[in-house]
Amino acid sequence: MADLIIKGGIVLTMDGAVIDNASVVVDKGLIKYAGKVPKEKADKVIDAPGCAVMPGLINAHTHVPMTLFRGYADGLSYAEWIKKIQMVETKLTPSDVRAGAYLGVLEMIRSGTTTFVDMYIHEDEVARVVDETGIRAALGYGMIEGLNEDAETKLKSREKFVKKWNGAADGRITTMYAPHSTASCSKEFLIKVKELAARDNSRVHIHVLETEDELKTMKKRYGMCSINLLNSIGMLGPGLLAAHCIWLSDDDIDILKNKEVNVVHCPSSNMALGAGVSPVPKMLGKGINIALGTDGAASSGSLDMWKEMRYASLLHRLKDPAAMKSSKVLEMATKNGAQAMGINAGVLKQGYLADIIIVDIKKPQFASSDIVSSLVSGTTGYDVKTSIVNGKVLMEDRRVAIFNENKIIENAREAMIRITEKN
Amino acid sequence: MADLIIKGGIVLTMDGAVIDNASVVVDKGLIKYAGKVPKEKADKVIDAPGCAVMPGLINAHTHVPMTLFRGYADGLSYAEWIKKIQMVETKLTPSDVRAGAYLGVLEMIRSGTTTFVDMYIHEDEVARVVDETGIRAALGYGMIEGLNEDAETKLKSREKFVKKWNGAADGRITTMYAPHSTASCSKEFLIKVKELAARDNSRVHIHVLETEDELKTMKKRYGMCSINLLNSIGMLGPGLLAAHCIWLSDDDIDILKNKEVNVVHCPSSNMALGAGVSPVPKMLGKGINIALGTDGAASSGSLDMWKEMRYASLLHRLKDPAAMKSSKVLEMATKNGAQAMGINAGVLKQGYLADIIIVDIKKPQFASSDIVSSLVSGTTGYDVKTSIVNGKVLMEDRRVAIFNENKIIENAREAMIRITEKN
Repeated sequence: MADLIIKGGIVLTMDGAVIDNASVVVDKGLIKYAGKVPKEKADKVIDAPGCAVMPGLINAHTHVPMTLFRGYADGLSYAEWIKKIQMVETKLTPSDVRAGAYLGVLEMIRSGTTTFVDMYIHEDEVARVVDETGIRAALGYGMIEGLNEDAETKLKSREKFVKKWNGAADGRITTMYAPHSTASCSKEFLIKVKELAARDNSRVHIHVLETEDELKTMKKRYGMCSINLLNSIGMLGPGLLAAHCIWLSDDDIDILKNKEVNVVHCPSSNMALGAGVSPVPKMLGKGINIALGTDGAASSGSLDMWKEMRYASLLHRLKDPAAMKSSKVLEMATKNGAQAMGINAGVLKQGYLADIIIVDIKKPQFASSDIVSSLVSGTTGYDVKTSIVNGKVLMEDRRVAIFNENKIIENAREAMIRITEKN
Repeated sequence: MADLIIKGGIVLTMDGAVIDNASVVVDKGLIKYAGKVPKEKADKVIDAPGCAVMPGLINAHTHVPMTLFRGYADGLSYAEWIKKIQMVETKLTPSDVRAGAYLGVLEMIRSGTTTFVDMYIHEDEVARVVDETGIRAALGYGMIEGLNEDAETKLKSREKFVKKWNGAADGRITTMYAPHSTASCSKEFLIKVKELAARDNSRVHIHVLETEDELKTMKKRYGMCSINLLNSIGMLGPGLLAAHCIWLSDDDIDILKNKEVNVVHCPSSNMALGAGVSPVPKMLGKGINIALGTDGAASSGSLDMWKEMRYASLLHRLKDPAAMKSSKVLEMATKNGAQAMGINAGVLKQGYLADIIIVDIKKPQFASSDIVSSLVSGTTGYDVKTSIVNGKVLMEDRRVAIFNENKIIENAREAMIRITEKN
């Protein structure tokens, strides 16, 4: 007797197969079977005819509490935007971060994201929200050297964060070390981070070459770009998540490939802030693992990964319509994210984590010659009927039972108004 | 006693005002009042607290039956795409066009589009679908010179179309002459179209400089671009809808401005086909009226104008984050479209057409410091609760009562499979 069977849907395993009228069997938080209907019984059965059944989406780079600043600095360049945002960030209390994280997690669960990779301040609050809500996350307590505390105190507190939360919430929480960038953390500081990460067997999450300013600063300071600096101190490897990666040379791309670094592409944020266009098709051509992230809602406006997929698709097709296959974009939002995190997810396959979504495709925009293409071009978060994490149903038929949604929105609005007024 | 009152929402008049807890009163298909709650009674009352009440969206350039080809030629360049599409278009019967138009109109009503501007073949079928469904449209029976019939026969049949349908369906249908482009119709043919349009007091809808190929063809054939050719024959004016307008010189932009031509921007299609980036911020800066369109779903993948707004916003912010104010993008999708069509719509104001949508903003992505910004970045078609055209409720609380939705989708799928197989 398994825990759950999802029956009769079109199963996209993200492992090469699209199987009509198939089942996914879940037991003890893991996938037991995905394929043509097996002879299996379960405590709970979800009927999914007219639905796509697929791995939950993985938002591989975000700052979830920044939902509080959504719309606040709309229409500004990166330099102006970050200045305005950092000013309001100084006002944030742990309870604000909690309110913002709840709002963001609610939006993610409702739009089919089952896992996110976060980097922010007061990250213990984000961890508590993950614990309470049932979503999965890899959390990094952000570090900007010299901000608020000395380097030693900062590193100590981050060690404590990793120790406290890694593996918590039935394994749904993993942790990363999260130095903000090579421009905001010194080489010496980054070396210490690297050593801690190696000792704790922890991944590292960092912004890399998001802006041309960063590139200029690095060239001036070190005579080399961020990739080369990270390489020189041995920080590049399959345990690194490099967000953005816009201002890359061809040599940088080769280094990322050789070191098996994971890149996280954030098209909407990059477009909204005029940061630039990451050479994603070129990196995909080299076989670099590229995941997808919404970045914070303060720049992207939305945590809906379906929108992000379409932005990724359109942004690169602008230069080459054949650059981004829809199937590749869907992989970026699922299994590539899991690979970047180092977890067995993003694929519906025996033994993998039972993080699953059910998308209602009985709607006009899914009447199409190509299911994968129409999923990428036509789906929005609202088409996701059901979201399952670790085998547990967090949303069913659009009802998120465990939350008081109105209260979450109200708390966030209150924090938002207080923080952003008089700025 | 009015016909309808929508009470208690946040009313965006699109005429400069955002009014909290306000009402919109509708009578005899027109807006009677929009503002703070008046002492008025009505046959029907819709309560809209926690909702935005605003003009319905206007999709100012589409080929609605092309929903049948959604996903069919995904990931191809314009040149390869048009070849593949034209091949399947030869197979289309009037009944296929009807099936595709029904599918597209359903998608539009469900996503808050109350009016569309169309150009396609077998356009009488589209007109019938508009008549039957209650949506509003400006319809053009497309003309490619030399295709299927001689010029005289073609023009005669288009005159007949205009005569038959202009003002039909209680005025919900207006018509336009719709020569495909300056590359596919000769100068002489276009002059005839111009004369017919002048005689019939009809607008003209045409593709202009969508591709660099068109620019090259025109330079070679006439020694001038499409804008200059249209100018030389007196076709530029406030009655012209010029779709795309990508490959423009600064002089072309000045001409469009001086002649008061309406431009229709179609960002997702332009990105998907790698057609190029229309200089929209520059044209807006000159004061040119720019509306927004999804183009056909065969290139854009979706007829959701909310997505299109966000694409318009992000595409141009990539070069200049301050280029596209969210309020401007919302205007492009509403009142600018109405201006392009020459109808009194797109604004909630006394005497204007009662084409209204109600957007449910009691959702996490609308908890924001800026309602207009979060509408543009956060809304999807599924947030639209209620759509009203000509004072008549076509969708209420997401229920589209007058259609058999499953039947529409099934008919379209059947046509789709038959047409696209073995190509």
